[in-house]
Order: sequence, then structure tokens, then C-alpha cells
Amino acid sequence: MSGNWLDKLLDPRSVAVVGGSDDMKAPGGRVLRFMLSYGFAGDIYPVNPKRDMVQGVRAYASVADLPAAPDLAVIVVPAAAAVDALQQCGERRVPVVLVGSAGFAEAGPEGERLQSELKRIATEYGIRLFGPNTNGIVNVRNGLVATFTPTMDQEGLKLVDGPVAIVSQSGAIGGALFYDAQRSGLPVGRLLNTGNEIDISMEMAIEALSEPGSSITTILCYAEGLRRPALFVRAARLAAAQGKRIVLLKAGVSATGAKAAAAHTASLSGEDRVYDGVLRQLGVVRARSVTHLLDIGRVFAAHPRGIGRRASVASLSGGVGIMLTDALERAGMRLAVHSPEVQRAIDPLLPPFLGRNNPLDLGGSPFHHLDRLRGILQVLDNNPDSDFTILGAGGFERRQLEIADVLVDEAKKLKKPLFVVWYGGGDLASHRLNSAGVACFPDAERVVSAIAPAARPVVAGTSARRTAAEAVPAGVDRNAAAAVLEGARKAGRKVIDEVDGKRILAAYGIDTVAERVVATSDECAAALQGLRLPVVAKLRSDELVHKARVGGVRLGLATADAARAAVNELLALAKKLGLHKADVVLQEEIPAGVELLLGMKRDATFGPVITLGIGGVLTEAWDDVQIRLADCDGEVPDMLASLRHQQVLQGAGGRPVVDAADIAPTVERFARLVCDLGDQLDAVDINPLIVRGGGAGPVVVDTVFFLGD
Amino acid sequence: MSGNWLDKLLDPRSVAVVGGSDDMKAPGGRVLRFMLSYGFAGDIYPVNPKRDMVQGVRAYASVADLPAAPDLAVIVVPAAAAVDALQQCGERRVPVVLVGSAGFAEAGPEGERLQSELKRIATEYGIRLFGPNTNGIVNVRNGLVATFTPTMDQEGLKLVDGPVAIVSQSGAIGGALFYDAQRSGLPVGRLLNTGNEIDISMEMAIEALSEPGSSITTILCYAEGLRRPALFVRAARLAAAQGKRIVLLKAGVSATGAKAAAAHTASLSGEDRVYDGVLRQLGVVRARSVTHLLDIGRVFAAHPRGIGRRASVASLSGGVGIMLTDALERAGMRLAVHSPEVQRAIDPLLPPFLGRNNPLDLGGSPFHHLDRLRGILQVLDNNPDSDFTILGAGGFERRQLEIADVLVDEAKKLKKPLFVVWYGGGDLASHRLNSAGVACFPDAERVVSAIAPAARPVVAGTSARRTAAEAVPAGVDRNAAAAVLEGARKAGRKVIDEVDGKRILAAYGIDTVAERVVATSDECAAALQGLRLPVVAKLRSDELVHKARVGGVRLGLATADAARAAVNELLALAKKLGLHKADVVLQEEIPAGVELLLGMKRDATFGPVITLGIGGVLTEAWDDVQIRLADCDGEVPDMLASLRHQQVLQGAGGRPVVDAADIAPTVERFARLVCDLGDQLDAVDINPLIVRGGGAGPVVVDTVFFLGD
Repeated sequence: MSGNWLDKLLDPRSVAVVGGSDDMKAPGGRVLRFMLSYGFAGDIYPVNPKRDMVQGVRAYASVADLPAAPDLAVIVVPAAAAVDALQQCGERRVPVVLVGSAGFAEAGPEGERLQSELKRIATEYGIRLFGPNTNGIVNVRNGLVATFTPTMDQEGLKLVDGPVAIVSQSGAIGGALFYDAQRSGLPVGRLLNTGNEIDISMEMAIEALSEPGSSITTILCYAEGLRRPALFVRAARLAAAQGKRIVLLKAGVSATGAKAAAAHTASLSGEDRVYDGVLRQLGVVRARSVTHLLDIGRVFAAHPRGIGRRASVASLSGGVGIMLTDALERAGMRLAVHSPEVQRAIDPLLPPFLGRNNPLDLGGSPFHHLDRLRGILQVLDNNPDSDFTILGAGGFERRQLEIADVLVDEAKKLKKPLFVVWYGGGDLASHRLNSAGVACFPDAERVVSAIAPAARPVVAGTSARRTAAEAVPAGVDRNAAAAVLEGARKAGRKVIDEVDGKRILAAYGIDTVAERVVATSDECAAALQGLRLPVVAKLRSDELVHKARVGGVRLGLATADAARAAVNELLALAKKLGLHKADVVLQEEIPAGVELLLGMKRDATFGPVITLGIGGVLTEAWDDVQIRLADCDGEVPDMLASLRHQQVLQGAGGRPVVDAADIAPTVERFARLVCDLGDQLDAVDINPLIVRGGGAGPVVVDTVFFLGD
Repeated sequence: MSGNWLDKLLDPRSVAVVGGSDDMKAPGGRVLRFMLSYGFAGDIYPVNPKRDMVQGVRAYASVADLPAAPDLAVIVVPAAAAVDALQQCGERRVPVVLVGSAGFAEAGPEGERLQSELKRIATEYGIRLFGPNTNGIVNVRNGLVATFTPTMDQEGLKLVDGPVAIVSQSGAIGGALFYDAQRSGLPVGRLLNTGNEIDISMEMAIEALSEPGSSITTILCYAEGLRRPALFVRAARLAAAQGKRIVLLKAGVSATGAKAAAAHTASLSGEDRVYDGVLRQLGVVRARSVTHLLDIGRVFAAHPRGIGRRASVASLSGGVGIMLTDALERAGMRLAVHSPEVQRAIDPLLPPFLGRNNPLDLGGSPFHHLDRLRGILQVLDNNPDSDFTILGAGGFERRQLEIADVLVDEAKKLKKPLFVVWYGGGDLASHRLNSAGVACFPDAERVVSAIAPAARPVVAGTSARRTAAEAVPAGVDRNAAAAVLEGARKAGRKVIDEVDGKRILAAYGIDTVAERVVATSDECAAALQGLRLPVVAKLRSDELVHKARVGGVRLGLATADAARAAVNELLALAKKLGLHKADVVLQEEIPAGVELLLGMKRDATFGPVITLGIGGVLTEAWDDVQIRLADCDGEVPDMLASLRHQQVLQGAGGRPVVDAADIAPTVERFARLVCDLGDQLDAVDINPLIVRGGGAGPVVVDTVFFLGD
């Protein structure tokens, strides 16, 4: 909970501007100017030791001299002076301080020292500190333009309040986003550039903006890294529960890509994919560029509850309709069907030679006779098979506002969302439409990339959370599993092989293949008593990582004699390879099925995550996994549906169909294991997990556990 | 060759405007107005039976009354009157006529009748006809704005000539593209909206603009379908040979998607993928939206010879640099390395606390001290590891033109391309930069999608063309192959099974697996004389499509006895299945390798095409093929490199590495077969083609030929 720092930060009754001056080249001059020119609805106290008046306002020599403690102090003086100013704020009991000054941790060792001074003072006095190295915040509602970004240095820029907030770790990008949003008619009411985040972080801002009672419905974020990922998860779940939308542009996807790692799971689960999966699980939409971020924001601002998947398309030019159809299909949406009734309703509105089907080619006439355009929008809106309408317009550059006004007026009467693609020019129409909540885009690809995230229902986000109090599922023996881990650790092992690994999995009620270990071929006969033929023989040794590559696996052993011979051969191979200690695993052969990979890895940001994807000997070649937080009950259907190679799951090559209901219990038992014991693990591969079909659950055929330090 | 229709169309000395009037709501009024207001450099003859003067120009009652035959007549009267006017143009020997009128084939049966009248008259008089149903053309060089698109109805729009042409099948989209290009500073000198294309088609226009001597270097196309695909191929090869760039936005990708088909090749090679492959082969860049089309045009207009792959990135905000790095890496480009020398050269230009590596975070100072900005651009330009520079700018909205002017001036001094990303505002800077050939974009994703096609070298395009005169490769017996086809045809067969299929392939010198057909198990012993054990036994019958699914395949037959038993079992199975005629193929078992799919299909647009991709029982699941025109020698390395699952080719699962040099001879022999005999074939699957590695060429294990009608 934000306490009330967000109120003080965004709705202060009084603001001190430490460094406020007459110099527009200086940050303090700009902050003061913007506060004045955008009409801040509260008291402004410039702090400037050299002047009694700045920009026509009474100034004070120091924070100590202020007539009253302000709700918020904005410090924009050089770093060393900022530390002194913060100290004074502490002494005056200023509750929230924004330090805009640069020259802290981002600027080398001396800056780091100054930053820890800030932190010390803030802690000592209980100040909630925003920054340092932030270029500020904006609250449009009360004219609090407490930023020095030069983009705000505008004549004639009228800020419009609205239910969208921007939270950015980069001031330059936050400022650019806010400016582009405002001038294109997207009502971003709040801007928070979080800077070095020594106290208030992006995650805290998201959480505070998501709380019940916040007027914000859509939070657009730019992040380079999450400093407090657990808080981000909590904030995202809060937002989802409140029906609010978060859109995140995460930069730095290539910075620490997937590294080669011993575990398949780890090498296939690079940072960027973890973000993809976790954000999806949390209902956070991921934007791919600043343009995309604002485009999605435009759609959510107007339609926070989503829009559905069935599109009505009508356009001035047939080509625009075709491109919209292409883009919708690529995005997994579909065209609404025009029933005979719908077609009959269109008849009086279009010339006879034009078609009546979706996408509708309007020709120019409805743009000359705007009552017909209104009529068509009504017909499409009334089509029960349609969820929303996209109108393709353009060309009429001189008449753009006339057309836009009709669309804005008609959109108010429609029951369903209306979007516009305006080809060629249309800057004024686009601004008019966007300002009225009729999101307008310059091409088919842009509109469809913007609306696609809104076609997915908002995720409740909280239903799947596993609590400590939750009952342990039947058949789980946590102690047995922990004992195997403990034994391995005591033996100084970093890796647990498939035999012990399967004991851990079995302790969580996960089905594993039947197997026996034999040290000599003489033990074969007894071992085969408990196994169904045919069996597989695998050489096992701590010194051997890739047994298949050295010929250490023998398949299809259909008789006891064949098994015995294979064991002898493998032990001879071990001797030849110079392995000090080796034995052989005899394992029932599982008939061909679909081979999946199930695993976990410890992610540097989010901690233990679960990976589910396509397994088998070509796991890396398929390169097709989905990742979720370990707390992932209920996610299996979406994980499977999100894999790229759907045919592998749908019976390709005559193999069984993979049914989410069949494998969810296994994944969820494994997730339970990871939640319980993940602290001790770096990574786990279960590969293959064979899906047998015919109602039989999946079975673990091979696995390896990598212990943490 | 265009003869001289293009000159008459785009550079007429005189133009008749049939339908020229005073009414700006009528197309004829607008064409005349635009010709006059944009300053056409030639004679204009309005044709209007009702007025002596229109828009201050002497008008004539009919084409017959004109004082001289114009080089070009633009007809913009209703369809029926247009037919009469064309007749008069014929009688007056007008060489080129543009029919802008609508109401022809696009408007139903009566329109179709009128359109065939147009065609008849044009043929009779040898008129080169442009249209009908085109909204016209523009040649900026001579002020020929012979279009009635309302977008041109502008005060203050100054057209700038340049080496870019737009050719569009949609007038609305062509007009929008032209307008957006001009107002954003992209010098599009020619616009041709080809309309119903009854004579001059998009392909003809591309060819004519590509001829030696044309001042056009970049042709941006919007197409819904190619009416003359063979001419398109020829034109694209001409353009490539002339070093000109074609960029195509092809709409309608979802219209006729991949349909389920008997052949894998056909079902995996939908229309859109055929376009992807053929365009790539031809060196034609494919744009994904109108915005992308213009963006790519911006880059090619400034850098027709391409830009390389190694980027220097410097930006006002670190975040912009990170996003550029992300986007470059996703697009397969890379950051230039800053050697110690480069870093030392940067030292005096940036404060000490900022890094010296690529991407370079500039902070704000070089934007305040523009000499430093110039210095940094010079240092990056001089880095021998760099091919081009991307500068991230923004924020300084009031100073945007000052900064843009410095960049334009400095760009002239640089040896390598400079691109700019301007975040937040920057409309004026962007226009200034684009107009000066410094392509400027609003975000990282946009700049990288725009430059990525220019990172690929232009394809010569002509080297790989196979001519009829070319020598037949060694070991090709065309007659033997044709005889097998002929035999099947005579037998009334539509499908040629693997045994006869391999005879056809073998006649082209393609390596096929050794096999024998036996009708009874008594024939086994003799058959095995010619085969190396182990063998595979496959049931063969015309009535059996999916032999594996009914258990009709037996693997790993290591002894003659096992083979004999398998043959008996398969023949018993045939009896059980009620097959009227069946025998068994005994085939040497090929050790596990990489299974490829090689095939052909008859594409509705481009005719026979070759498909190469990942094969095996999971072919559809991999869904990874590349398609080229059958005339594809030299394409194998690019086809392989373009597959998505590179690890399959790189030794995944311990399989052999697929070397393009090893498989190119097989693909090219198959391509030769398709060029020779493709007319008789609907589709061919070779699946699997097994790559064995170790220097052995690939071998065909299974195949099926589908005969055409």
C-alpha cells in the first residue's frame, strides 16, 4: 500500500522548487516556469538564495526559510547541494521529496557516495524520496508539471487529463511518451519518471496507481529492469484484480540473452522469454516499441474492459479492407459474418455493384453522403456476430474534420468500439478522433497490433496463487523428496541423476517410468522380475553427461538375454571410457508418444520459473517453450496454446493428441515441488515427459536436477 | 521494353483533359485544376462540349476539335462517354490514353461490356491504354499531376522530384502513399495508379521504370495480385541487374491461404509463402504495411546500394540506445566494436562518467554543444568496424530545426549513412532530415525495420537463369524420365508411387535408395541379392495412401528370414484390408540422418515452384519450408539459411550437419527436372530426402508424383 506518498507526490497543496530561478536553460528555471504556465493549483515556493523574486513569485533563501513545510519539495540543484537541501527538508518534516538533480549513482563513485547520503537522510527523517536523477512528474488534473524536460517548453500545448498514467525508468523516454500522447489526443493524466529509484520505484508506483479508488485505468510503463520483481508481481495482480491494464515496454532484451547452459530448460529460457511468459501470466501486455506502447494505451484508455475478437471492416478503398483482413487474420482475430439480414440492411446504403460481405468496400459515396456512413456504422454495430468495427477512411484531406466530427458523434451512439484507419494525411482528423476516444491509426498493421492485446480477456490474476496454508495435494511426500536432495548435498553432488531425480518426482506423485539399477549382468534376471519387456539399458555414471553420444543407450531389449548382453556391453564401454564408477539402468520402454520438456530454472529476476515445451532429442531445434512463475496452477492450457508448433500437440505423425487436462496435474505437481524445494535448485530438466494418449497420464522417462549453492 | 509509351505517359508535350471543367467536385475539374496549379510544363487542352473556357483555359467541344493530337489524353467522363472519347482519340491517333473513369469491369456486367469496348478500340488503333478506373498519375519533374485524388487538393503542398516511383493497383492507396511521402520529405517523383490494367499493367510499369536510362532508382509497389507474373519476374530481374530496388506491399495474404492438399509440398506452400520466397529470390523487398513501404523507400532513396550490417549507435538517452540494440540484434545486424582508438577519440567529446562503448549514451551535452555532436558523428563514421550510424535524438522541441540543420550539414561530410531516431515530437526536424536524405524515424523499431532490407546486398538476379540452350547436366536422361510419366498417364494414373517416382528422379542423376519389389515372399531371396541388410519392407498398393498408419511398414529387417516373414505379414495385411492389388517394396535401411523435404508444386501465380525444407514424419509440425521459382540454381545456401529451425541443420541431436554444397547438386538436378517436365506435374514430394553427412550426398527414400490434367 502506498500510504499517502502518492497523494503528496501527485496532489500536493504546496510545492517548494529548490533551485527555482529565472533561467530557462537551468532545470530549476524550467520546473518553475512549467508549474506556473501550466497553472499548478496550489502554493509554489521557489527556493533561491540569490533572489527575492523569481518569475514573479516570492522566493526563499532556503528550505529552512519557507513560511510552512510544503507537501512536496522538488530539488533541482547540483548533486552536492541537493544533499544539503534534502537535509533541510528532513528538518522541516517535508513528507515527500523529488530529487531531480543528476550526478548520483549514474555518474560514478562520488555520485554513489552522494546517493547513499540521500538515502541515509531520507531514512533518518522518514522522507519518501522520488529519484534522484529523475526529470520529474506530471499530474494534469492539478497542473503539477514538476518536470524540467524541454519537451514541455511549448506554446499552445493544452494538457488534457485522463485515466492513463505513464511510469518510466527513463526520463527522456517518459517525457517523449507523455508529449506524443498529449499532442496526439491520448489523455495521459499522470507521468512518473522514476529515475534512480532509491526509495520509490516503478513497481511501487504501479502498485499505488492500481489501488482501489485510483482514477487510473491504464498504466503504460517503460522499464530497463525491475529492481523489485516480487513487488511487480504483486502490483500486477492487484491491477488485474482491479480491472486495470498494465502495458510494459521492456528494453534490454538482448542484453543478457539465453546463454548456453547445462540444463535445456535454462538454455531455452533466456531473460526475454521469462519476461514474455511471466507478463502473460500476470495479464501485463508487452509492447514492442514506444509507438506500440502508446497505440495499445489508446485502445485500453477507451476500452479498458477489452473488445472481443470479431471485427467488422468497412473502408473507402478495397485495398485497405484487404490489408485489414490480412492483419486481423495474422493476429488471430476474425471477420464478423454478414448474415442475409445484415446484407439487406446494407442494401439501401451502398450502390448495387459493391459487395455486401465483410470486409465491406464502401467506395467514396458514404464519405460524400455522411448520413450513409452513419447508417453503415449502425448496421455493423447491430450485427450480433460482430464485436467491434474498423473503418478505413482517408483521402478527403480538406474535409477531414467534417468526417471526423461525424464519426465522433456516431461513435457515441454505437454500442461497440469503433476504430479508424486514416490513410494519407488526416493529422487533424486523427487528433480529433483520438481526443474523443475513437482510436485512429495510419495503417492496418498499426490498428491491429494496437487492438490485438485488447482482444484477450483481462486475467483475474489472483485465482491461481498458491498459499502456504493450501492443503498439500494427495500423494505428496515432501519429506521424502527433501531427503533425496539432502542426501545428494551431503555427498557433495551438484547434479542428481535420473534415478534419484525420479525418486524426488515420484515423492510428488508424478508418474515415472519403471526402472531398476544393476551393477552387473548377474543382477539382470532379478531386476527384470519387476519390469515389463521390452526394456532400455542406459549406462549411468556421475562422470558421464551425454550417455547417448558415446553409445551408452541400448533400445528395444525384448528378451532377458538381450538385456543381459546389453548390460555387459555397456559395462565394457564404461571400462573402455575409463569411468571410475558406473552401473546400468534398466528401464521399461515407453511406446512412442509426444515428447515434452518440463523443467524449472532459477531466473535472475523472478526466481524459480516453470518451463513447458517440446522435448525429445531435438529440444533445442524445436526451441519452443513457455515459461511461467512457479505459482502457475491453471496456466497449462494457455502454456500449451502459446507454443508455436501446435501440430506437435495435435497428432502430427500419428502421435497422440496432447490434452491440457491430461498433463495439467503433472505440471502442477511439479510446480508444487518447485514452490516447496526450488530454493535448493538451480535447474531441473524432465525430458522427455512422454504423453501417451488414450487417457494415460504423461510419464517421466528421463530427468536431471542441478542443485543450487 | 516500353517502346515509348512511358515517355508519352509521363513526359507528354501536350495533354487533353476530356471532362475538364470548372467543377472541383468532379474528377475532370480536379485533374485540370491540379495540372494548372502544380504547373504542368506543356500544353493543356480541356475537352468540354458545354464551355469555351474552363478554369481560364480555352476548351474544345470534342477530341475531334483539338488543334493538334496531344501526346496524352486523360479521359475523366462517365464510362459510356469515355468509350466514345477513346474512339475519337483513336481517330486522332493519340498514342497514349489514360482512362480515369470508373464504371468498368469493377462495376458489374455492363461495365465489363464497356471495358471490352475500350480494349477493342485500343487494339484497333494501337493506343497504349492506362486504366480504366485509375485515379491517375503524377510526374513531379514536369508538373504532370494527372490525377483527381482529393489528397492533392492542397494549398502549400510543394512537390519535390526524386528518384522514387510509386506504382499502385489501388488509387486510394497510391494517392495516400504519394501524399504522405511528399509531406514527410520522401522525394517520390512518379506515381502510377494502374487501375483495371487492361493494357498497361503494374508489371509493365515496373519494367519500363527499370530500364537503363531511367532516373528512378527505387520503385515502391502496392499490389493485390499480379496479372502478369512472368513479366513481373522479368522486370524484377531487369531492375536488379540495373541496381534498382523494388519494394512490394502485397495485400491479400489471407485471401487464399494454404489449403489442405494431398502433397505436403502443396499444403506447406501457400500463396503467401510462395510470394515470400519468389520475391526474396528476385531481390524484391517485401513491405508489411504502407508505413513500412515508405520507410524502406526512405532508406533506399538515400542509399540505393545498401548500407551493411554493422551499426554505430549514439543517443541522447541510454534507453533509446538499448532499444536500438535490441531491434538491431533481432534483425540480425550487430553493433560495431569501439576499439581503444575509437574510445580515445571519443574521450574529449563526452563527460568522464559516461561510457565509451557502443551503444554510446551521449547525455544532453552534445545537443547543447553541437560541435561535440559533429565530432562524435565523425569519430563513429571513421570507425573501420562500422557501416552506418544511428543517432537517437529528441526532447529539444524548440531547438529541433537547429539540431536538424547541424545533422544535415554533418551528414554531407560523412562517408557512411546516417539515420536518426527522433523521440517525442520532432515533426519539423524529421521533415528537414528526410528532405535532405537523412532518414528519420520516430522509434527504434521503425528505423531498424526500415534499414534491415538495405543490409542485404542487392541480388544480381540474372546469374541463375536457366536457358533452353544450356547444356544438359551429366547423367540426365530426360527421355527415360518422360517415358515413366507417359506410361503412368497412359495407364490413367494420377499418382506415381515411390518406385516409379524414384526411376524418374534417378533419370535426372538423383541418388535414390536401393530397392526391389516382390510380389511374393518367394521372390525375397533373389531381391535381397542386390540389397545390403538391414532392409525395410513397405506394402505398396494404388489403393493405399498412408501405408504407415495401417502398419504397412516394417523396419530393421536384419536377416533374410526376417525380411521373408515381413513380406508374408504385409501381404496378409493387404488381404485383410481388402486391397485388390498389392506388392511389397524391400528397401535398404538408411542410417538416421537429417530428413529434408524437397518438392515442387504448381503455383497459381508463378507456375512450377521448388520447395525445400524440413521433412520426416513431422513435416507439417515443423512447417518450415522455403520456396523458389524452379529456375533456382545458386539459391540453395539462401534457402537453407532462411529456414527457421537452423539447429536441425546444425547437428542437433547428434545428427549430421547439413551442408549446402552437399545438397545443392540434388536440388538443382530436381529443379532441372521441374523445368523440363513441370508442365505435366501438379506436385512432387520427396520426403524424406535423407542427408547422411560425412561427404555422402543426400538420398531419396520416399517420393510421390502427382500428375497434372
